[in-house]
Amino acid sequence: MESIVECDVVVIGAGISGLSAAWMLHKRDASLKVVVLEAKGRVGGRTETIKLKTGNGSMDFWDIGGQWVGSTQTHIIDVIKELGLATYKQFTDGTKLMQLGSYRVRSYKSEIPSFSLLGVLDLARFLHKVEQMRKTVDVFEPFECPEAKEWDKMTLDTFIQKTLWTEECKDSLIATSRTMLGCEPSQISLLFFLFYASAAGGLMPLIGNQEQSAQGMKVEGGTQQISQKMAKLVGEGAVLLNQPVVKVTQLADHVDVTTATNKLFRSKRVIFAVPPPQLGHIHFEPGLPYPKLNMIKRMPMGHLNKVIITYKHAFWKTAGLSGEAVMNGGPSPIAECSCGPLGIIMDATSVSGNPALVSFIASDQAVEWALQSADKRKSAVLKSLADLFGEDVFDCADYIEKEWSHEPYTMGAPIAIASPGTMAFLSEGLRKPFDKLHFAGTESATQWCGYMSGAVQAGYRAAMEVLYHVSPKAVTREDMVGTAYDQHKHKTRVIPRTKQPICPKFVKYTAIVAVVIGSLYITKRFKAGELLETLVKRFQNQ
Amino acid sequence: MESIVECDVVVIGAGISGLSAAWMLHKRDASLKVVVLEAKGRVGGRTETIKLKTGNGSMDFWDIGGQWVGSTQTHIIDVIKELGLATYKQFTDGTKLMQLGSYRVRSYKSEIPSFSLLGVLDLARFLHKVEQMRKTVDVFEPFECPEAKEWDKMTLDTFIQKTLWTEECKDSLIATSRTMLGCEPSQISLLFFLFYASAAGGLMPLIGNQEQSAQGMKVEGGTQQISQKMAKLVGEGAVLLNQPVVKVTQLADHVDVTTATNKLFRSKRVIFAVPPPQLGHIHFEPGLPYPKLNMIKRMPMGHLNKVIITYKHAFWKTAGLSGEAVMNGGPSPIAECSCGPLGIIMDATSVSGNPALVSFIASDQAVEWALQSADKRKSAVLKSLADLFGEDVFDCADYIEKEWSHEPYTMGAPIAIASPGTMAFLSEGLRKPFDKLHFAGTESATQWCGYMSGAVQAGYRAAMEVLYHVSPKAVTREDMVGTAYDQHKHKTRVIPRTKQPICPKFVKYTAIVAVVIGSLYITKRFKAGELLETLVKRFQNQ
Repeated sequence: MESIVECDVVVIGAGISGLSAAWMLHKRDASLKVVVLEAKGRVGGRTETIKLKTGNGSMDFWDIGGQWVGSTQTHIIDVIKELGLATYKQFTDGTKLMQLGSYRVRSYKSEIPSFSLLGVLDLARFLHKVEQMRKTVDVFEPFECPEAKEWDKMTLDTFIQKTLWTEECKDSLIATSRTMLGCEPSQISLLFFLFYASAAGGLMPLIGNQEQSAQGMKVEGGTQQISQKMAKLVGEGAVLLNQPVVKVTQLADHVDVTTATNKLFRSKRVIFAVPPPQLGHIHFEPGLPYPKLNMIKRMPMGHLNKVIITYKHAFWKTAGLSGEAVMNGGPSPIAECSCGPLGIIMDATSVSGNPALVSFIASDQAVEWALQSADKRKSAVLKSLADLFGEDVFDCADYIEKEWSHEPYTMGAPIAIASPGTMAFLSEGLRKPFDKLHFAGTESATQWCGYMSGAVQAGYRAAMEVLYHVSPKAVTREDMVGTAYDQHKHKTRVIPRTKQPICPKFVKYTAIVAVVIGSLYITKRFKAGELLETLVKRFQNQ
Repeated sequence: MESIVECDVVVIGAGISGLSAAWMLHKRDASLKVVVLEAKGRVGGRTETIKLKTGNGSMDFWDIGGQWVGSTQTHIIDVIKELGLATYKQFTDGTKLMQLGSYRVRSYKSEIPSFSLLGVLDLARFLHKVEQMRKTVDVFEPFECPEAKEWDKMTLDTFIQKTLWTEECKDSLIATSRTMLGCEPSQISLLFFLFYASAAGGLMPLIGNQEQSAQGMKVEGGTQQISQKMAKLVGEGAVLLNQPVVKVTQLADHVDVTTATNKLFRSKRVIFAVPPPQLGHIHFEPGLPYPKLNMIKRMPMGHLNKVIITYKHAFWKTAGLSGEAVMNGGPSPIAECSCGPLGIIMDATSVSGNPALVSFIASDQAVEWALQSADKRKSAVLKSLADLFGEDVFDCADYIEKEWSHEPYTMGAPIAIASPGTMAFLSEGLRKPFDKLHFAGTESATQWCGYMSGAVQAGYRAAMEVLYHVSPKAVTREDMVGTAYDQHKHKTRVIPRTKQPICPKFVKYTAIVAVVIGSLYITKRFKAGELLETLVKRFQNQ
């Protein structure tokens, strides 16, 4: 063991959350000695900006990790501004494509895939129901909502199968779950899904790509700059790379943190800002309380590979397409896999105008495709894209696939999701301090949980908790709102759910049959996408 | 790094599975150099035999880990005989107690709690349905059964809520899930539950305490002896304690295993015999295939604390009670917990006749109670027992509670269970070799998965796979049955499920009402327990 490094606060994890915490500590009390320990050889966590060859032979930057921000994500937007970075809009103009319910490729122009008339009604009804349900779920104490137990005991899939009628809608929900959460709807607690929507202010902000939605904007030059710039502000010497933490011992008046490199850091307080499953690899003395152990072991990381393909020309734009598509994988080009590799595709043209497409190989689809060689996967990706955008897709300048599930000390993407039967301990498991240990990380956020914005919010909250102890003059009572030391016990904002009128099943099914027959006649002459948007907007304003 | 230890096979984990593998390798080819690396300071894994003070002041042995075996568990029974150990019957004579559906304590004499007549019919119907379903689930490839996808996408809880009518039956299933699997029914895939029952030959063998059932017999002097004796037979120097493995690197012609003590073991093949989540803490080069990573991260360990209390007199026997009870926790003696701590209680009198009771604090009940002090928990346990057995329970000679969820390198008990949406990769995730790495452990067993018997079966199977490569003359084609090198591709034995006759809901509910009214008149004069056993037996013989 080398000599002991004494400091005030140790932050574990130099992703956006850990660095936000360290930066906030630094801003509030520059006299504090803060050390940030990062297991990897780089900062940024689940954000990583890489260089790819463009269509004209030069190099440009793309985000192979977290990429999008939205204007309602106030925490990250403020950080971006404060760091002198800029955002630009996700390109969405033009026709979008879908391959859901069947292998047929259809096109649409609204924000949400437009289905048959029955599909439209089905999805609108589903979104309305989810919106009504998620409004009863408080982001601080999701388990206190009236139907918490019932919703936590079932999978999102059980709810989808019970609620949706059409295969195209089910397909769209599966594709959404895979790309948004990196998991199958069967792997996630319905209550967690509702909580996740609540933390984003609704399901529409999560799935949309308008400026205010989760996929609305990108960061010029890439999102890893956020961490790089924060690390500089915290102080070059304060962020130590290649220091995986193996042991954390709490003693009467300090905490000892030991790294795999046999260094010992002694501090007053420690902030953890790592993906929840990573906590399971650290040896704690005394052991973590059961609510935390219980939560950690039932929150596996999602599985998401990201693919970026650069081109000389944005041929999709020339064809009047936005580059956006949502699909159920489509037919598999090889016998070993049950469907094609892709779920959602978007335009990824850089701020400098270098054309690219981005897509994801996610969840069980990814596990199946992982058993194939990288080459086979690449050719299947291009084949699927060709079905949508034509033969031009094969003529790419660069191609990269990042397997986040093999990234050391992250082991998955985009987030850790809660399995059914876990939510009773969510807030205690993820957010509550354990003596001198505090917990950040986007999964512990209450606003835009799972996103870069949530990472900042959680980092700031953990920093406030630590300041409360190590530098109480640096914080106000207002700073304590939402922390473990909130004076006003947070009141759960439960909104009672509107009960649906009793509708005998035969009436419902008769209506469905009528709609099916009706839609066969009407669909082609009716702008279904616009109807859907109208319905959705009406529901959201309720 | 110290010098390299060269050997033929490294076995990781000196529990029953790892030592069974090492012993089998040794028996088939004594010339092989086998090294068993154990992270803990003892052998036995999830079995541990401890000394407690008896009622007469002497010391005696009790199992604070895995304890019961049954006559149909052929693998462990054969090992017990071969090692010169003996078994004795679990004491079950006398009246049993239940506190299900409400706080009222009721008594019964049959093998299964006897409810109201409606409850009896409810449970019989449930057991019949589960038996019909689980018969379609093949133990080698559970995901190949016709309804696999549907059953894997829902929690056991969703199935229970859909199928059972009465609170007392739901309570009994919850208590069973908690003690048998260490988890809530909401945390487990229905398909995994059916697979688990199939691997035991049915649900009744799992929950019963007749000689052939899972709780039928105990081992004289304790089950840790099984591992201790196997370790001796493998060779004293071959089993190395306090050697946690941190890294496993597969190279062209050998595997390098590095321990936390900086020792390097170089071998031809490696067998892992650790609880699945522990694999997640080891750094693999190359990384584990996704089906394995996917399975490991969605198989959390159960949560089970075991309590043993010794007494001078078996006062329950004097009162004509067997000592067995099943409860929904009962009322909580403190405001902080929603119910009492216990689920299932059994007689634990040692082979020498020293009286004791054994009970379990399991799953979410345990998490809740873990937040209380050990003293508060002890007094709540005794208070719950007093409600059942009277004031004599307070006069105990010794009292021990083992928190398996804090046991290093085990971190839970009794087994790792599969969350919903995981079963597609069960066999590939748990059993399939990865190049030169082979996988044992009771979770990978196909007979009595999760039990000591499954641990032996899996250990033997992994040993055969390794012998196939390192000592092919030591194995026959028959030895390969059930291994990765099985010549005859295992044919899935799917038994089509008997479709139930269509029964309109109003007929069903009218019948329920009739039964409820009828049962009010009949229950007291009717031996409901015997009726249930008759029904269950009839169903099982179908």
